[in-house]
Amino acid sequence: MDRPLPRPSDGRSTPYLLVDVDVLADNVARMAARARQRGVALRPHAKTHKCLEIARMQVDAGAVGLTVATVSEAEVFASGGFTDLFIAYPLWVDAARGSRLRALAERAAVVVGVDSSDGARALAAQVPGTAVMVEVDSGQHRTGVAPEEAGLVAEASARAGLDVRGVFTFPGHSYAPGVRADVSAQEADTLRRAVASLSARGLEAAVVSGGSTPTATLDVPAGNDDGSVHDSRDDVLDELRPGVYVFSDAQQWELGAGGPEHLALTCVATVVSRAGGRVVLDAGSKALGADRSAWATGYGRLLDHPDARISALSEHHAVVTWDSSPAPQPGSRVRVVPNHACNAVNLHEELVLTDGSVWPVAARGRLS
Amino acid sequence: MDRPLPRPSDGRSTPYLLVDVDVLADNVARMAARARQRGVALRPHAKTHKCLEIARMQVDAGAVGLTVATVSEAEVFASGGFTDLFIAYPLWVDAARGSRLRALAERAAVVVGVDSSDGARALAAQVPGTAVMVEVDSGQHRTGVAPEEAGLVAEASARAGLDVRGVFTFPGHSYAPGVRADVSAQEADTLRRAVASLSARGLEAAVVSGGSTPTATLDVPAGNDDGSVHDSRDDVLDELRPGVYVFSDAQQWELGAGGPEHLALTCVATVVSRAGGRVVLDAGSKALGADRSAWATGYGRLLDHPDARISALSEHHAVVTWDSSPAPQPGSRVRVVPNHACNAVNLHEELVLTDGSVWPVAARGRLS
Repeated sequence: MDRPLPRPSDGRSTPYLLVDVDVLADNVARMAARARQRGVALRPHAKTHKCLEIARMQVDAGAVGLTVATVSEAEVFASGGFTDLFIAYPLWVDAARGSRLRALAERAAVVVGVDSSDGARALAAQVPGTAVMVEVDSGQHRTGVAPEEAGLVAEASARAGLDVRGVFTFPGHSYAPGVRADVSAQEADTLRRAVASLSARGLEAAVVSGGSTPTATLDVPAGNDDGSVHDSRDDVLDELRPGVYVFSDAQQWELGAGGPEHLALTCVATVVSRAGGRVVLDAGSKALGADRSAWATGYGRLLDHPDARISALSEHHAVVTWDSSPAPQPGSRVRVVPNHACNAVNLHEELVLTDGSVWPVAARGRLS
Repeated sequence: MDRPLPRPSDGRSTPYLLVDVDVLADNVARMAARARQRGVALRPHAKTHKCLEIARMQVDAGAVGLTVATVSEAEVFASGGFTDLFIAYPLWVDAARGSRLRALAERAAVVVGVDSSDGARALAAQVPGTAVMVEVDSGQHRTGVAPEEAGLVAEASARAGLDVRGVFTFPGHSYAPGVRADVSAQEADTLRRAVASLSARGLEAAVVSGGSTPTATLDVPAGNDDGSVHDSRDDVLDELRPGVYVFSDAQQWELGAGGPEHLALTCVATVVSRAGGRVVLDAGSKALGADRSAWATGYGRLLDHPDARISALSEHHAVVTWDSSPAPQPGSRVRVVPNHACNAVNLHEELVLTDGSVWPVAARGRLS
């Protein structure tokens, strides 16, 4: 990689998030191309970047709209001019949230997730006619009904007066080593069974939506002779909703779903201590997030030192197990690759770009 | 406990942080009393709450000043009228940070941590005469020199023209089960050796500062006949810097350093899904933080269901392993106790109090 580290003389105190604008643009274009080749729509999850400028890049590259996680994220992106939003979450809609959803619906086409008959009725009572997608569980065992129950929830939704558009799943259990192919197959199978469950009740799933960054990798596999790429899931999937691919992160790096050449987001940190021979940085869990999966090799990686690991993390300190190169002196700056880009971005007010721009994290902390 | 859960009709969408103002006031008073009984000064760490109103309560209860982690936290509290601030961190002071420290020094008495001769010289070059405390490592192996090297760093600091005030340590390795007594003894021993190391070079440690919430517990042990409380550390310690005690959290609960009666901070969350019989809440790692120590029993606890555990956490979902009571219906609200209060607070713009007040998290995201 030939990416110069910003000099301390740039005057910005560490820690701060740095986005390599060329790598970002390449990631955005690459995933858009992959979706086109597979013949599926791309509706990227904006919870990763929470940034209007990046959402604009995604839509300009062909995304059909955005996915968001919360009503307040939807409010921010609607205010930013994005008018096709899927809240991929089984909202519990009480009076307060209903009022916000009605206001939102005046500014954007909004689709909401649903995974229970009770949830559907609560939503319908507040915002009659809302477009919904039924969430099914493809193995992560979080939200989402079993695929065989999708028809039941869809029917209850239709009876309550909601506009049933289709089914969706999030194969979050793809965030583990060596499972990508199996989870992709499981995702496709789950969605097929969910579509059948709707059909059995005379309902159509016009949209079948899936995909996470590990299952929708940035690296395009070898195509067919005509240049097309066939993925076994494409017989059922209409739409992909990857999020992390815009930045990638240490998790994706370690899962093999986005190598160092795809890493667009780092946290610039200063070596503040070499006491006891340790290398300690001023980026801790309040700058990087505390995420560490059981299979992760540490609390984060260093872009320019692939063998180094963050072996201990507290709020404002990262202790690095250094690689074989000479350890850096206090005052040196390094680029840290967070384990989980989504949580790291949410901890910062802005993204500093390698071209000198500064973009606000507009939907930061929009939790409700 | 007899603390009513706020009703959904309060109109605030979940997730949000709720502070029980009575428990908070009791925690503040209790730690202040404990410091007085032990005859040590209390300089609470404000990184936990980042809130001007809570800092004011602490100072009104007798705290000699505040501890902060970053220059930007110091800037916020100085703007809020707090004029005695210890940045308990070995800052690397370049020109930009030097300029900010000089501006800060015009508004408040500021003391800065130092753990290397290089760091001392960099600080002195920017802000001559700054008051410093030498950080020593009492076993956490993060920042801080070995106690025997404290004199060397103090001497280099004095020669560079800094004003050496004393020594400090953070016994962060007290965050583990069953180690509190050992770590407290280690902390005292380390500080004694550090003081001796300064003495050997003709330097005095006027202030000897230690303490974390687990080693400075809220529960006052049985006192002596005259009502005083003797702690073996009090022969050396002048000052305590606990932070988490104002709120306590699931870590303190599990460490036995602050039982449920001391839990002042919860995240109010809604049950959004019962699909597959699971209980899923709308508070995930973006509302609670992703902290989970190896010894923690989950990603967080429920205040009103001590046997329940958050067994899986993603950005906007907590999957709860429920206790033996009937599981709650979708739409129910519960109070989640975050594992680590400091990281949870930093994810929110405001704290909602049980008396109806709303306090801004004024120093939220102040990382540099």
